[in-house]
Amino acid sequence: MPHISEKGRQMPSSPVRKLVPYAEAAKDRGINIYQLNIGQPDIKTPTHALEAVKNTTMDVLEYSHSAGNQSYREKLIMHYNKIDMDLSIDDIIVSTGGSEALMFAMGSICDYGDEVIIPEPFYANYNGFATASGVTVKPITTTIENNFALPPVSEFEKLITDKTKAILICNPGNPTGYLYTQEEMDQLTALVIKHDLFLVADEVYREFAYDGREHFSVMNQAGLEQHAIMIDSVSKRYSMCGARIGCVVSKNKEVIAAAMKFAQARLSPPTFAQIAAEAALDTPQEYFDEVIEEYIARRDLLISSLKSIEGVKVANPGGAFYCVAELPVENSDDFAQWLLESFEYEGETIMVAPAAGFYSSPGMGNNQIRIAYVLEKESLKRAVVILEKALKAYNA
Amino acid sequence: MPHISEKGRQMPSSPVRKLVPYAEAAKDRGINIYQLNIGQPDIKTPTHALEAVKNTTMDVLEYSHSAGNQSYREKLIMHYNKIDMDLSIDDIIVSTGGSEALMFAMGSICDYGDEVIIPEPFYANYNGFATASGVTVKPITTTIENNFALPPVSEFEKLITDKTKAILICNPGNPTGYLYTQEEMDQLTALVIKHDLFLVADEVYREFAYDGREHFSVMNQAGLEQHAIMIDSVSKRYSMCGARIGCVVSKNKEVIAAAMKFAQARLSPPTFAQIAAEAALDTPQEYFDEVIEEYIARRDLLISSLKSIEGVKVANPGGAFYCVAELPVENSDDFAQWLLESFEYEGETIMVAPAAGFYSSPGMGNNQIRIAYVLEKESLKRAVVILEKALKAYNA
Ligand SMILES: Cc1ncc(COP(=O)(O)O)c(C=O)c1O
Ligand SMILES: Cc1ncc(COP(=O)(O)O)c(C=O)c1O
Repeated sequence: MPHISEKGRQMPSSPVRKLVPYAEAAKDRGINIYQLNIGQPDIKTPTHALEAVKNTTMDVLEYSHSAGNQSYREKLIMHYNKIDMDLSIDDIIVSTGGSEALMFAMGSICDYGDEVIIPEPFYANYNGFATASGVTVKPITTTIENNFALPPVSEFEKLITDKTKAILICNPGNPTGYLYTQEEMDQLTALVIKHDLFLVADEVYREFAYDGREHFSVMNQAGLEQHAIMIDSVSKRYSMCGARIGCVVSKNKEVIAAAMKFAQARLSPPTFAQIAAEAALDTPQEYFDEVIEEYIARRDLLISSLKSIEGVKVANPGGAFYCVAELPVENSDDFAQWLLESFEYEGETIMVAPAAGFYSSPGMGNNQIRIAYVLEKESLKRAVVILEKALKAYNA
Repeated sequence: MPHISEKGRQMPSSPVRKLVPYAEAAKDRGINIYQLNIGQPDIKTPTHALEAVKNTTMDVLEYSHSAGNQSYREKLIMHYNKIDMDLSIDDIIVSTGGSEALMFAMGSICDYGDEVIIPEPFYANYNGFATASGVTVKPITTTIENNFALPPVSEFEKLITDKTKAILICNPGNPTGYLYTQEEMDQLTALVIKHDLFLVADEVYREFAYDGREHFSVMNQAGLEQHAIMIDSVSKRYSMCGARIGCVVSKNKEVIAAAMKFAQARLSPPTFAQIAAEAALDTPQEYFDEVIEEYIARRDLLISSLKSIEGVKVANPGGAFYCVAELPVENSDDFAQWLLESFEYEGETIMVAPAAGFYSSPGMGNNQIRIAYVLEKESLKRAVVILEKALKAYNA
């Protein structure tokens, strides 16, 4: 019998999916589960985006351009123009989700064995994309005590070797919710220019910046034109995760030319979804105002009630819709499984993501979980009550 | 300025897309072009598949299961059951086109530097997927004189090393149209069992088997359960290339477990498209009967008129909707570009795919082109007239 590859073996399992069988068994026992484990928002997709798909009149569902429909890319340029990015249609390749944009970027700039430095905890699938591309992740640990802020530049410099090709940041961060300041972006800018690296910024949560704070895009950093690669996605912005539309953006022509060859090999991004994504660009500001108000209210409620639980530590997320919480447990993997397997409070329990999977350094995050505040406030409130009861029972 | 990777540099350009700028310039000069260069059929998508998308009533366009919607996979099992495959829901991972299925398969079974043997000429993007995955393609040349039939097993054995992980076939073949016989499938079966290799079969053109001949799937070869990996797609079957839905199928649990980790990393295949693909499974046999009758008529017309041109050699395709033709030219790359740049016959010209890009061995296919018979008969007839005039003018 032939066997799979080392790569196939080393591909990480998704930390948010491995609990699914336990959740299913709990549901079968009639237990109601508050799902705080994945970044699937409950927010409604703008109706005009869904309607646009229903109003199509095509006879043949054809491949689109490998870089995405021209009309969509043209409207994207106008969209980015509103946030002061001066782009041309050749700077954008539409991808199948931000996921594929990350794969295109890694493949275009890294060879087998090359290194990318990523502040951890980070979006767990960066590990999967790195393994798939033969890239080694060099993590640089950020701490809950420090609110997961950017570590000093000297810490990055310790990790830079002749195999280092890029620094990858997620801004605002999943799972931390951390929003980089202008000063931090300037530090990173100076760093990548000094060491001739790419700065890849995953900005799929760009709109979710709270407390009146501004988001600083990698595309707006002066002097970074040849270094900056932006990863974007419609998944969270318009709550249309199932569309599978994102893009990779860069003013570096070499990068776009290479990414374009990956894009041509897979032919095209999905046609229906591009129609929805193009229509979504007309979403009025009020939609975002409402959504952001809702997320801020959820965050405030979640953070303050988590803080009121004895032994729980939590940072102050400035963006996205996640927070990392430190719990008075030794092994949050075990705790998260126990929540589904052995616990219930009045017929209910919660599903959370153990944080170890968001770290690349072994042994980190073992007492942390990630909570996605993708449920309405009443449910969130109830979920925190259940967490408090569970911690008591677990530690008894 | 930071530079792209060797991988980014080595990614092949699509042989069917590099002529696009010349075609656009020709259109700008008012020239009518018959596009025979890409596998985008003109056949109508079944209306009930398009309607199913229009009839959706979702509020939130959510991620689906990473392996694809359960309802779709269940219906797929019944679909495959009709062609005698006995599958369970865990043997199938729905992918973003057959393209992604090929990437999942290569990543799951190959490490950096591993080798896959592929009879050439082959679907050009296998080169791209191999480069992206760090896999080395070992081509084994098939010839137009031999109708592109399977080379003797001894030729394969010459290429097998301890780095060989799989043999990849396309059945029926793009660009050759070659349909493997039961005997050839049995030879391949014995070969991969003897050398403990995977046999990956790209069967995206399965339905397009002509002259009453049967298609023999890798999934129906006895004794091959642990070796067989099938690549499938709705793109050509239902003329819905823009959906971007395919799947990877195997009874080898290790393979599916590894492929599932690649699938989880990229979250999910597109949601709208899965709805269309699920509905497409209800397409009545009459649709296929009509489509196949149409393709046979086109093929017969194309092949016989090509054969009537002096100096043109062509094989007899038994399936798919392509043929490889050998022309009385030295460099079909140059000829194909010249057709767009410098030729016209009564205000018209044709666009064809130079065949060198379908070979991995350097120097092969230089006097061949691939023609996709994705236009109706009148257009095909006219296109061959133009080709004949063009060859005369080019060689004058
Ligand atoms: C930080 C980050 N980047 C990228 C993605 C990929 O999302 P998609 O492929 O749906 O665009 C996600 C999804 O959760 C994410 O959280
Ligand atoms: C032989 C073969 N395999 C795979 C594909 C990939 O198609 P898709 O990704 O649209 O399923 C194609 C497309 O032309 C093809 O010809």
